[in-house]
Amino acid sequence: MAVIDFRIRPPFKGFLDMVMYANPDRRNRFTAQLGFGPAPSTTEKSMDLLMDEIKTAGVDRAVVVGRNSGPLGSVSNEDVAEVVALYPETFIGAASIDPTNRKGAMQQIRDAMAQGFKAINIEPGSYPAPLYPDDRTLYPIYALCEDENLPVIMMAGGNAGPDISYTLPVGIDRVLADFPGMKLAVSHGGWPWVHQILHIAFRRPNLYISPDMYLPNMPGMDDYLKAADGFLADRFIYGSSYPFMPVTDCLAWFRTLPIREEAQQKILYDNAAEFLGL
Amino acid sequence: MAVIDFRIRPPFKGFLDMVMYANPDRRNRFTAQLGFGPAPSTTEKSMDLLMDEIKTAGVDRAVVVGRNSGPLGSVSNEDVAEVVALYPETFIGAASIDPTNRKGAMQQIRDAMAQGFKAINIEPGSYPAPLYPDDRTLYPIYALCEDENLPVIMMAGGNAGPDISYTLPVGIDRVLADFPGMKLAVSHGGWPWVHQILHIAFRRPNLYISPDMYLPNMPGMDDYLKAADGFLADRFIYGSSYPFMPVTDCLAWFRTLPIREEAQQKILYDNAAEFLGL
Amino acid sequence: MAVIDFRIRPPFKGFLDMVMYANPDRRNRFTAQLGFGPAPSTTEKSMDLLMDEIKTAGVDRAVVVGRNSGPLGSVSNEDVAEVVALYPETFIGAASIDPTNRKGAMQQIRDAMAQGFKAINIEPGSYPAPLYPDDRTLYPIYALCEDENLPVIMMAGGNAGPDISYTLPVGIDRVLADFPGMKLAVSHGGWPWVHQILHIAFRRPNLYISPDMYLPNMPGMDDYLKAADGFLADRFIYGSSYPFMPVTDCLAWFRTLPIREEAQQKILYDNAAEFLGL
Repeated sequence: MAVIDFRIRPPFKGFLDMVMYANPDRRNRFTAQLGFGPAPSTTEKSMDLLMDEIKTAGVDRAVVVGRNSGPLGSVSNEDVAEVVALYPETFIGAASIDPTNRKGAMQQIRDAMAQGFKAINIEPGSYPAPLYPDDRTLYPIYALCEDENLPVIMMAGGNAGPDISYTLPVGIDRVLADFPGMKLAVSHGGWPWVHQILHIAFRRPNLYISPDMYLPNMPGMDDYLKAADGFLADRFIYGSSYPFMPVTDCLAWFRTLPIREEAQQKILYDNAAEFLGL
Repeated sequence: MAVIDFRIRPPFKGFLDMVMYANPDRRNRFTAQLGFGPAPSTTEKSMDLLMDEIKTAGVDRAVVVGRNSGPLGSVSNEDVAEVVALYPETFIGAASIDPTNRKGAMQQIRDAMAQGFKAINIEPGSYPAPLYPDDRTLYPIYALCEDENLPVIMMAGGNAGPDISYTLPVGIDRVLADFPGMKLAVSHGGWPWVHQILHIAFRRPNLYISPDMYLPNMPGMDDYLKAADGFLADRFIYGSSYPFMPVTDCLAWFRTLPIREEAQQKILYDNAAEFLGL
Repeated sequence: MAVIDFRIRPPFKGFLDMVMYANPDRRNRFTAQLGFGPAPSTTEKSMDLLMDEIKTAGVDRAVVVGRNSGPLGSVSNEDVAEVVALYPETFIGAASIDPTNRKGAMQQIRDAMAQGFKAINIEPGSYPAPLYPDDRTLYPIYALCEDENLPVIMMAGGNAGPDISYTLPVGIDRVLADFPGMKLAVSHGGWPWVHQILHIAFRRPNLYISPDMYLPNMPGMDDYLKAADGFLADRFIYGSSYPFMPVTDCLAWFRTLPIREEAQQKILYDNAAEFLGL
């Protein structure tokens, strides 16, 4: 059974400046709260160990997601492109933007398309000046992504933003309604607004959900799983959110979940492949 | 065990102009996501088949709810009254209003009372110009319903409104507090705000909850059922939301749920009868 | 196994003017909805019976929480201090404030510290003029509590406030972020915003959660319990919210819950003791 890990941040160049690597105590606290321990590759900040872990886990492809953030740190699209170029059989890149400069952001998207990036990464609540998902400054970006048929990965869940109002999924609902031709995958799965984001997925066929690290034993898990095994089987996507979760243990845990094998295959590979246009 | 189906829209005259009949693909997508198939009467748009299905299911009475909506389509109170008059042993009518014309709406309510309608149907988020439940333009309507002891059915859940902010139950909580003598039944059960609407029902004795189509295997179902079998046993109401759910399969499914027989009887008949003053 | 009951309002002097004693029908309706009956001490308004019940239950210490409220009634800090002085082996006092008078409130806090109160009680939504938890008038109070290392008990859940917007935990999230050195225990557990408050506890290490009366068979209970037995084992606190729940039956019920013994000990005693600095 082939596997795509939909969210991974390797210990490589600019990624190491991000808070998740620069502040290991904070990261390890979250990992422990999820019931896991840190991966050796995380503690050692070792690309070689990570590639071993990916192989051992049986992960075939992994989406490398960068970031342009104040409080969480940033990594350039160049660094993302470089690590994808080093491991082209494994990694798939998602390009970030600077939303404060409309023309620049649109150029970043065009450049990303030319460079082979497969998705655009938008993290509204974590920008240096936090935005809600339906902020008007993002609308030209969404319009371009819809027109160019570019899938959008949005971090909207967990600690995305200065407070929980940034994950309330009202704005996402509006964006999905206003750009019905744009595919949107919500990383961190809109958690903790579990019932709400699942309703939006019920209503809007262009929404994909990937709770990644906010799944294991987290509040609402049973509702995520019931949807994943039911009406959302074609739009639920697996991810580890590495380095918060180890690539290997996360996948081993996921395989123990009570989800029909047919739905597991979709969640572990098919849905992400369809979303990314592989 | 007698049964009232609290929400039904028969394939009759103006109902056929509503989106649920005019756009069968959209409707069938929702039906499929709920794990059901369309009823023959729905596909055939046949009143005769529907009346057969109602009889086969063992449904004794059904509340026919009209609509005054922009995006979802409208049906006149006259058409609702006509189908009720054709099948008076089975159907009970709920009258809709046009909230943009206060005096007209109050006259509609007085006319509905004279015509034998048993409840007033208010769908704030689905009006041509969407309203929140606590919009001030609705307050004279609520005041009249409270003063005349007319029960109000409000669609506030699911796809009611342009986005999920319209189902956030803050406004409902305020309306219930401001009109404590008005009985309000929430169709679509306030879903997906499951914990929130159940809290409001815990606090406000004038709230009745009918999740209808947003119950089967939907996120939050277990919490709805626990409340239905517990503190909410006297104010939980069964409904199919036909044509989204088949009358027969929906009831057969509901009877399999782990609810004490005493509570089932209340949910399937007594609570709706008490609410409607039958 | 030693036990602290984190929320108790004894039938003593000013407490008897509060709505929970002055309107027994309202209180008994909530008690019945929770599946319990009133304690003899509650019906009889008897301190002697309550002290017997506390002893029978095996409760070692109980936090007596006063109130300054319009709609729910008030009790003075003097009355709280008096009942604590009468039963110093059992009771621990939490002091209330009047938030409309900044200098007076800060003096109330200094007086409370001098008098041996162990925590400050803040009930934003229930003040005569209701406040949201992040209202700016409360910020000097929080600043003082953080600077003086005084733990804060906040009622933010259930019927706290005129409508459900007052329990939406956005404001709590902001307060916790703005005062990271202030320990905050949320009484009524942020219910019904179960997924949301648990997310905030996942993110903010200075949040403690005590659902007290909004736990037994209430919507979201399973998610509370999973967190209590998992990532929140060090910050989940037991309470009865007496007189809404009987001290004895509530504890007997809690002991039946599927929580590891190690976590039970923390929830029943250690976490409250650590929070209060006992």
